[in-house]
Amino acid sequence: MERILLIQGANMNYLGKRQPEIYGSTTAAELDAMLLAHAHEHAYFLEIFYTNIEGEAINRLYASVIDGVQGLVMNPAGFSQGGFALRDCIAALPFPYVEVHMTNVEKRGIHSLLAPNAVGGVYGFGVNSYLLGLEAMLRLLRGGSLRN
Amino acid sequence: MERILLIQGANMNYLGKRQPEIYGSTTAAELDAMLLAHAHEHAYFLEIFYTNIEGEAINRLYASVIDGVQGLVMNPAGFSQGGFALRDCIAALPFPYVEVHMTNVEKRGIHSLLAPNAVGGVYGFGVNSYLLGLEAMLRLLRGGSLRN
Amino acid sequence: MERILLIQGANMNYLGKRQPEIYGSTTAAELDAMLLAHAHEHAYFLEIFYTNIEGEAINRLYASVIDGVQGLVMNPAGFSQGGFALRDCIAALPFPYVEVHMTNVEKRGIHSLLAPNAVGGVYGFGVNSYLLGLEAMLRLLRGGSLRN
Amino acid sequence: MERILLIQGANMNYLGKRQPEIYGSTTAAELDAMLLAHAHEHAYFLEIFYTNIEGEAINRLYASVIDGVQGLVMNPAGFSQGGFALRDCIAALPFPYVEVHMTNVEKRGIHSLLAPNAVGGVYGFGVNSYLLGLEAMLRLLRGGSLRN
Amino acid sequence: MERILLIQGANMNYLGKRQPEIYGSTTAAELDAMLLAHAHEHAYFLEIFYTNIEGEAINRLYASVIDGVQGLVMNPAGFSQGGFALRDCIAALPFPYVEVHMTNVEKRGIHSLLAPNAVGGVYGFGVNSYLLGLEAMLRLLRGGSLRN
Amino acid sequence: MERILLIQGANMNYLGKRQPEIYGSTTAAELDAMLLAHAHEHAYFLEIFYTNIEGEAINRLYASVIDGVQGLVMNPAGFSQGGFALRDCIAALPFPYVEVHMTNVEKRGIHSLLAPNAVGGVYGFGVNSYLLGLEAMLRLLRGGSLRN
Amino acid sequence: MERILLIQGANMNYLGKRQPEIYGSTTAAELDAMLLAHAHEHAYFLEIFYTNIEGEAINRLYASVIDGVQGLVMNPAGFSQGGFALRDCIAALPFPYVEVHMTNVEKRGIHSLLAPNAVGGVYGFGVNSYLLGLEAMLRLLRGGSLRN
Amino acid sequence: MERILLIQGANMNYLGKRQPEIYGSTTAAELDAMLLAHAHEHAYFLEIFYTNIEGEAINRLYASVIDGVQGLVMNPAGFSQGGFALRDCIAALPFPYVEVHMTNVEKRGIHSLLAPNAVGGVYGFGVNSYLLGLEAMLRLLRGGSLRN
Amino acid sequence: MERILLIQGANMNYLGKRQPEIYGSTTAAELDAMLLAHAHEHAYFLEIFYTNIEGEAINRLYASVIDGVQGLVMNPAGFSQGGFALRDCIAALPFPYVEVHMTNVEKRGIHSLLAPNAVGGVYGFGVNSYLLGLEAMLRLLRGGSLRN
Amino acid sequence: MERILLIQGANMNYLGKRQPEIYGSTTAAELDAMLLAHAHEHAYFLEIFYTNIEGEAINRLYASVIDGVQGLVMNPAGFSQGGFALRDCIAALPFPYVEVHMTNVEKRGIHSLLAPNAVGGVYGFGVNSYLLGLEAMLRLLRGGSLRN
Amino acid sequence: MERILLIQGANMNYLGKRQPEIYGSTTAAELDAMLLAHAHEHAYFLEIFYTNIEGEAINRLYASVIDGVQGLVMNPAGFSQGGFALRDCIAALPFPYVEVHMTNVEKRGIHSLLAPNAVGGVYGFGVNSYLLGLEAMLRLLRGGSLRN
Amino acid sequence: MERILLIQGANMNYLGKRQPEIYGSTTAAELDAMLLAHAHEHAYFLEIFYTNIEGEAINRLYASVIDGVQGLVMNPAGFSQGGFALRDCIAALPFPYVEVHMTNVEKRGIHSLLAPNAVGGVYGFGVNSYLLGLEAMLRLLRGGSLRN
Repeated sequence: MERILLIQGANMNYLGKRQPEIYGSTTAAELDAMLLAHAHEHAYFLEIFYTNIEGEAINRLYASVIDGVQGLVMNPAGFSQGGFALRDCIAALPFPYVEVHMTNVEKRGIHSLLAPNAVGGVYGFGVNSYLLGLEAMLRLLRGGSLRN
Repeated sequence: MERILLIQGANMNYLGKRQPEIYGSTTAAELDAMLLAHAHEHAYFLEIFYTNIEGEAINRLYASVIDGVQGLVMNPAGFSQGGFALRDCIAALPFPYVEVHMTNVEKRGIHSLLAPNAVGGVYGFGVNSYLLGLEAMLRLLRGGSLRN
Repeated sequence: MERILLIQGANMNYLGKRQPEIYGSTTAAELDAMLLAHAHEHAYFLEIFYTNIEGEAINRLYASVIDGVQGLVMNPAGFSQGGFALRDCIAALPFPYVEVHMTNVEKRGIHSLLAPNAVGGVYGFGVNSYLLGLEAMLRLLRGGSLRN
Repeated sequence: MERILLIQGANMNYLGKRQPEIYGSTTAAELDAMLLAHAHEHAYFLEIFYTNIEGEAINRLYASVIDGVQGLVMNPAGFSQGGFALRDCIAALPFPYVEVHMTNVEKRGIHSLLAPNAVGGVYGFGVNSYLLGLEAMLRLLRGGSLRN
Repeated sequence: MERILLIQGANMNYLGKRQPEIYGSTTAAELDAMLLAHAHEHAYFLEIFYTNIEGEAINRLYASVIDGVQGLVMNPAGFSQGGFALRDCIAALPFPYVEVHMTNVEKRGIHSLLAPNAVGGVYGFGVNSYLLGLEAMLRLLRGGSLRN
Repeated sequence: MERILLIQGANMNYLGKRQPEIYGSTTAAELDAMLLAHAHEHAYFLEIFYTNIEGEAINRLYASVIDGVQGLVMNPAGFSQGGFALRDCIAALPFPYVEVHMTNVEKRGIHSLLAPNAVGGVYGFGVNSYLLGLEAMLRLLRGGSLRN
Repeated sequence: MERILLIQGANMNYLGKRQPEIYGSTTAAELDAMLLAHAHEHAYFLEIFYTNIEGEAINRLYASVIDGVQGLVMNPAGFSQGGFALRDCIAALPFPYVEVHMTNVEKRGIHSLLAPNAVGGVYGFGVNSYLLGLEAMLRLLRGGSLRN
Repeated sequence: MERILLIQGANMNYLGKRQPEIYGSTTAAELDAMLLAHAHEHAYFLEIFYTNIEGEAINRLYASVIDGVQGLVMNPAGFSQGGFALRDCIAALPFPYVEVHMTNVEKRGIHSLLAPNAVGGVYGFGVNSYLLGLEAMLRLLRGGSLRN
Repeated sequence: MERILLIQGANMNYLGKRQPEIYGSTTAAELDAMLLAHAHEHAYFLEIFYTNIEGEAINRLYASVIDGVQGLVMNPAGFSQGGFALRDCIAALPFPYVEVHMTNVEKRGIHSLLAPNAVGGVYGFGVNSYLLGLEAMLRLLRGGSLRN
Repeated sequence: MERILLIQGANMNYLGKRQPEIYGSTTAAELDAMLLAHAHEHAYFLEIFYTNIEGEAINRLYASVIDGVQGLVMNPAGFSQGGFALRDCIAALPFPYVEVHMTNVEKRGIHSLLAPNAVGGVYGFGVNSYLLGLEAMLRLLRGGSLRN
Repeated sequence: MERILLIQGANMNYLGKRQPEIYGSTTAAELDAMLLAHAHEHAYFLEIFYTNIEGEAINRLYASVIDGVQGLVMNPAGFSQGGFALRDCIAALPFPYVEVHMTNVEKRGIHSLLAPNAVGGVYGFGVNSYLLGLEAMLRLLRGGSLRN
Repeated sequence: MERILLIQGANMNYLGKRQPEIYGSTTAAELDAMLLAHAHEHAYFLEIFYTNIEGEAINRLYASVIDGVQGLVMNPAGFSQGGFALRDCIAALPFPYVEVHMTNVEKRGIHSLLAPNAVGGVYGFGVNSYLLGLEAMLRLLRGGSLRN
């Protein structure tokens, strides 16, 4: 089974309570349940990690290299615009990165520093962005018609 | 059955022959077959339209409003950076728009004028970007856990 | 009788159906009727040309030189921001150009590339912008106290 | 009868003597006569106020609110580029503002700070810009097909 | 015999009538005759294509790949500044591109989007720019001391 | 016989040894021989002057006015981006200037300060750029269909 | 008793009537009463000066130096963005300046030219901004734990 | 009693020892005593939290929502310019935020990312900035004449 | 006798008391005496006008046209950076303008809007800047070797 | 013996495994051994601290002041571009700072926020950058011909 | 007698022949005679040095320190915009520098790098700029009412 | 023995006399003695070359290629900001370049054009910068643990 790490960046722990007119009313706990069900259904191993501290995300990523993680899906959230250190970390990882955002960051004028280091990304589809991002990662890991 | 219009913007007709180190070797014809199979499998109606003339895309879009199209998936390609008229057209459409790009446009420093008018987007996964974009559109049209 | 060409740029064919909170609910057909009535009342000949393709507007303009058109009134609409070729065409025309916009483009932060090549312009008065623009053109063609 | 205030901004008192190759040779006195004749012909009450001091224009505008003025037509002239205080004043007025310029300010690269606070504007038609601006104001005050 | 395509971009059909103080009084027809005579003299096959629609130029270029064209000489003219789609098309072509301009675009502050995709360019010599551009292309196709 | 001065700007003396993957392996001496042969063949007098000191180029240019030089062809090379004094000198010369570059400076993002003071330029054709530049100068000096 | 001058910049005379959704419904007269009561309660002498003319504020300030004013509290309002002359005046004053704004100018993207010449400032608390600004001035004049 | 959280951002723990010519010689401990005395005197509950890690401030803020905190007063200090994640956190809080700075940040050219998310702010009065900021918060919580 | 108007812009009335480390300790009255003595010595008529209100300077300038003034020497001081209206006024004057500054404005990074409308300027020599500026004006009015 | 603290910023713990084509294959452990040997050889006390969390570096630095550290050598790595808080911390330290980078940051277009607060820096020499940085610090601490 | 060095920067040797519509028809030789006559009349020693090589100006300046020169008057001309080395040299000189330009450089949009290192400057008065600049220098050297 | 060329750029000949508060009081002659002693001690051959003319530095560098120089250490000094030609020259050299600055150029906001073409650099340590730069070059030439 593929092993995928999903990181929720700064402020995502407050999902459902934070600006629901923008981010919807699904809570972090409900989202986790939805994602783990998706992992079960599609037969892969999913770890979910929330943090508000950029360096903790970096520490986790270097640890995950040792742990045999094969792919990173991340909503960088609050780290999107100031996360230079996280950006450099991702450039050093031996496994692919898929970036997801719940909202249309292009419409909001948010420029993610990390996106250039991703294979690709999905944005704007609310919690579905996570599902589509995980499916994109699975296609990357399980082959198929991707450009190589 | 949902009716989805897929527009291939400027230069996409040359897919497979154009800079294959960037865009892969799948030709436009092969891609079409793959997408129509996807439509058949997921039970929706798919129209595919290629054009190198921005105004033709606009004409087609206004015609599609009359024809009952319910969603637009588009790779604006060569229209991404200069397509002000197409951008205004999309803002006027009564149905949702999902933007797809085969490559990681963030890495290439390409800024799409049209993206702020989309519900969301998918980029960087080669021909899989189209499949993920169509699935995102289906989730939009068939409901589910999207933010409303 | 003076011969005036009125060009409606990209997306104006969708007037009345497109973002009515911005552009009002008068349709293109209703507007045309209003303008032709104005031409009849003020005794000039009016041609109205809609196009979503910038190069078609250019083709029409060069043809109109041969046809003896004496003045151009245009709402460049979707061509306002990317219409470099149209801008160069207008600089080459032997007759005057008056630019009109239905909305206050200054408030919306839209900068028309074409405006510097006009004699002058009218913006912000909805369909009245067309009437005022045509009257400005008539004053230009029929003389009066304009600066020379 | 409608009551319209026309303000002539900085340097307009020198009209006819100042750079006639740009502004024409009509003097301020001749222009006033022309405008008052227009008011008489179209049956509205017109006040004309010249000032070279931005704050005097502001004082006059607040006084005009008490006096029952129903519309402002202004050529901000020398106040166009530095008139932040006048801009804020206009935003506070309970009646509409129409901006006029004798020259094509777009061609001269002049950006008016005040224009975003106007309903609309007219530029480039010499002294006719005033007549067209007053007619635009009359259409605003007397109704008609304007967008509401 | 080498087969060279010469494309005349937007507004070049109006050559000789358009701003003769800038572009000279040679008409498009006279220029064509001069260029075809040059082709005859130097024993190569020359196709000349005028268009005001950017997408038509793109369509022609993809068709010319099939037709066996070996080199493109183009005066992008009105497409120089907004021709993103044409730029991408040229990057995809299997044959070399030489860009020509009649005027000194550097003096006029015009920056061509297409020039970085050319092998090289010639500007500022009026109709001689075409002759020099064609000769540059012939040197490219017929070998010689060019850098490889 | 026409008298043409060819100036090789900073670092051109090292041609053939300097970054041959960019500038080719033709040495300065070989290039000189090629250019003098061209002068002989086309019956004009050619002076070639190499310098790494901007002010020496200026001194030479003022001396050449006295010496009766009729045209300047120059590859400004290392003077392209900082040569303000040379730029002013060229503006003062009584004879025309043609600028040449061996590489496509547009692709390399190099902006020459001097180009706006040239009649025109040739770039991107390696050592052929010199030959085309000299031929452009001959056409300028010997008349023909140039715009005047 | 300390003598404090409070200047209300351009448009503040219209307080309560001007954009009440932004500035609240307290009128200038009501505000004055509130501030004078504060002065009475805290035993200092308060002068309040309203002006829409930047130079009048400057004249008043130089007069106040002679009159023995010990501190300036000012809401520059309409002078905030264009008040270069007022800025220079404040730099010349022998007494401290505290800047107040009723709204959160940081949120509105307004950058006050005058703020760098203040000791400090208070913004965003509506009419309370004045009270807090006066209290800040009193602490400055009456000593205490301020940094010196 | 109101419950107010005061956060001291990065480097504030070193107050009194760090650049005393800018920040004064009051130590963090002395400041805390002064603020707690103020809380006692004005009958509100004050928590003070120092941290050099941005994510710790975010964690504390989400915890304080659960703990019933009613207002945040913060000197973001070292987080002012790079604290994008903290900025997003504050936008999500259900209670008001008042920003304080000891120095005149406008004079030092420091632009706080967080200020647009505050109700208002106080800057430039040394340790008095804290007292004024707390009093501003009390006025917010205890009502009064604030704009609503 | 020549008639010269010398205008002292905003804040110059405070000369000698305002930032003497920058502007020196000569007062406005002492400077006036020095300048009038110079006028007497060199046999020209000098009017000196101080104002802190930009529009008053404009009013004075239009009046001076009628009064027969032949030259303007001005230290725009506080009007240097925001004086758009004054700039336009100067462009309209029928007599020459010489700009003076007591300090080296280039060193202070101050860019005068008015300088492009002057014949020339003098800066950096303290009160001597006035004397040199008046002498420059005399040379302009009395002829000599100036470029015409 | 001098006491020097060497901080390795974000991502340096992954040295040798991270982008070895840029950073070389020496691991963090091997580097530490090399540096401690250098300390032994040159008779100074060296502490090495790795962290991926900016605030931890700040905490360590304030602790090191108490511990008697006399100099800081740091490779800020991932903190170089977003480390505003760390920058302020360094400005507050009572001992000198020397910045080192393994790569030529000038060539990579990386601008370190921290460098202006250093005494000086060394970049581009791989692991030798550390040795040269430590030797620079020793020269600072042990005197010599440095400017004071 | 005071000893003043006058340096004529790049291209000034061509004065009178170079763009006489801008610089007038006085030749360098005629100007020299005029300046030496001025020196004789005002009893100071004047050296005049022309160079087109920036480094030669620097060499001359360091030599002039040894030679006892007491003041530098310079028209940097072609060195104005690229003369970083000359700028640093002037900052190192022990005697004052007065900058002169024949034309109004403010009108031409030329920004001199050297001006911030001058005591002051004179521009726009043709050859009179030199005379006024020398007189400014004399006032500096002979004392008077200059700010010190 | 290794052969190293040390170039002292513009104004370095004046070291010790030029702005000693910035550059210290060591003279050029004293520095040379110190550097030659270093060369003797470390057994390498050192040539020192001072010049104020950028092109002389270039000439020397091309000559040094023939002379067998193996490494360049340079303080570009006055050439740092305008030395485009020198930059291109360094890119063409077959031996490594190490850049040194006596001061912390990062603190002074000076951006060296040449640094991207260096292997690495040392800045901020006064005359020690030269010693460290030479030692860095020796490590480069004598091998060791540098990244390859």
